[in-house]
Amino acid sequence: MRATLMFGAKDVQVHAVPDATITQPTDALVRVVRSCICGSDLWPYREPERRAQGQRIGHAAIGIVEAVGRDVERIRAGDFVIMPFAFSDGHCEFCDEGLHTACRHGGFFGVGEVAGAQAEAVRVPLADGTLYPLPGGPDPALLASLLTLSDVMGTGHHAARVARVAPGKRAAVIGGGAVGLCGVLAARRLGAEQIILIDRHPDRTALGRAFGATDVVTSRGDEAAAEVMALTGGSGVHSVLECVGTGDAMRTSVEIARPGGAIGRVGVPHYDAIPESGPAFYKNVTVGGGPAPVRAYIDELLPDVLEGRIEPGRVFDRVIGLDEVPEGYRAMDERRAIKVMIDV
Amino acid sequence: MRATLMFGAKDVQVHAVPDATITQPTDALVRVVRSCICGSDLWPYREPERRAQGQRIGHAAIGIVEAVGRDVERIRAGDFVIMPFAFSDGHCEFCDEGLHTACRHGGFFGVGEVAGAQAEAVRVPLADGTLYPLPGGPDPALLASLLTLSDVMGTGHHAARVARVAPGKRAAVIGGGAVGLCGVLAARRLGAEQIILIDRHPDRTALGRAFGATDVVTSRGDEAAAEVMALTGGSGVHSVLECVGTGDAMRTSVEIARPGGAIGRVGVPHYDAIPESGPAFYKNVTVGGGPAPVRAYIDELLPDVLEGRIEPGRVFDRVIGLDEVPEGYRAMDERRAIKVMIDV
Repeated sequence: MRATLMFGAKDVQVHAVPDATITQPTDALVRVVRSCICGSDLWPYREPERRAQGQRIGHAAIGIVEAVGRDVERIRAGDFVIMPFAFSDGHCEFCDEGLHTACRHGGFFGVGEVAGAQAEAVRVPLADGTLYPLPGGPDPALLASLLTLSDVMGTGHHAARVARVAPGKRAAVIGGGAVGLCGVLAARRLGAEQIILIDRHPDRTALGRAFGATDVVTSRGDEAAAEVMALTGGSGVHSVLECVGTGDAMRTSVEIARPGGAIGRVGVPHYDAIPESGPAFYKNVTVGGGPAPVRAYIDELLPDVLEGRIEPGRVFDRVIGLDEVPEGYRAMDERRAIKVMIDV
Repeated sequence: MRATLMFGAKDVQVHAVPDATITQPTDALVRVVRSCICGSDLWPYREPERRAQGQRIGHAAIGIVEAVGRDVERIRAGDFVIMPFAFSDGHCEFCDEGLHTACRHGGFFGVGEVAGAQAEAVRVPLADGTLYPLPGGPDPALLASLLTLSDVMGTGHHAARVARVAPGKRAAVIGGGAVGLCGVLAARRLGAEQIILIDRHPDRTALGRAFGATDVVTSRGDEAAAEVMALTGGSGVHSVLECVGTGDAMRTSVEIARPGGAIGRVGVPHYDAIPESGPAFYKNVTVGGGPAPVRAYIDELLPDVLEGRIEPGRVFDRVIGLDEVPEGYRAMDERRAIKVMIDV
């Protein structure tokens, strides 16, 4: 089968690899229907480190189950499934609490022995806990939005939840990438009265407005913070969705948070310490977030996708075939695309 | 009248000063019955900076109202009152949300024009919003515990609330000073199943056990973290009450927090950035806290004090007169006393 291999900085290739197979009795083998390139894939894509064997990359997919191991009970061959970016057993204490990304037996696709999903097929460990089956199979028009439930929409929703977005509250979203845009959608869905999107790219902010952003701030740093304060009567926002992952974005987050407010950070942090410890303290601002337990959120988000109330799939502004994945990375790296879907 | 003046490092003196008076129509004049020395008073006590005029210090008190300004409606001369360490109007948007320490018109005793409470009397701004009257006057045996509602017990409770202590959960308290000990009491009161107190001083840990600590860890840093992990089956605690205010204490807090856990920090932060950004992120650990809105917590805590269910006043292991305040500071600075009450 064909699969994507990351070799190092700006070097991603699609190769013929041995077919994915079931290796554990709890596995499922999933034929990928749609996968995608995520913002977090760009971090290794930009790292100078060389991986001689290539790393099998990709962690978001929807597909059709081809086979299951002998201990799999809930998932069956033929099921159409959403594959969250983390696999999880579904019954440990952390899964019970809805934090599937801390599952005692879980892990992440594209790490170690578990191959990535930018491929024709993928082995899914702990299939019963991990996969979310869609009875009857989906409307083809919904595939893009369903794919977002495997990562990006759940991640934006996580930022909004951790930032305690609620009806009537003010929210700001830092970063208009696909996660930030889904954060806008999540904030609107949860009833925020004001949603300020901070991003400088017109294609992103236009989609952000379509998703529910009430205000757009195109500056950065202190200037952006000053604009947010002006837009909020000088108090700042109740909820900050930090969707970038840099120290500067965290600094702005603390600056624009209202006293008693909360920051939900979902950008993979590329900073050693959370800045502005003192201002965050004196304002009683809470900082939370991390890898989103998207498996836990599908129950809540799926009906809105199926019934057309949200269309997170609009973050995909480019669709490519598997062989075009290298160009897909280039397009995202050069910001020629917000997010690229792979029609396998 | 006599009042305490802080001149600089290890130099605190009790002087005759002009009598406190009402200067604003919303003020009350309170004759102090009990005040105390707080751990946070030791920070300026240890700073080399010299204050030529002396700073009027002290922020926690209970007392009797002697007079009120013409716009004061709710508080009357003769009322026995608890004076929270922050003054607040009681009706701005932040007070309405229970965050009185962010009051739009509020501030702190012992800062700027507003004198401190380690004195015979104190001017209380915004008396109607700030003061909490106790109808009928209190049982003298309860004075110590009532005094804690002006700061230290409310602060320990804030740490526990922000750390999301709840029935059946595991909690750890870093720092066995008076705030940490009140944190233990608050965690027990909120139903924590396990309460691990991290402190090395036997007098403090003994009181901690009396307050409800189920385990005591006397080591520090990585060693303390390893002991907490061993005490919690390797998972860590749901709730960390950070009652020290150093970067090392924050580092330990992140290390011992369970995935999905929360850290409530109430130690005045003497670090610029919150360390361990990555581990906190990958565990989805939330960091919150700040100056405690103790005014908001009196309604909840007072009945437990009045009916003897909690005795936070036991943190006071030494009682002095106003003239002995310099010795009180020395005793706390040298850890010969946990917390010193001033019987004015």
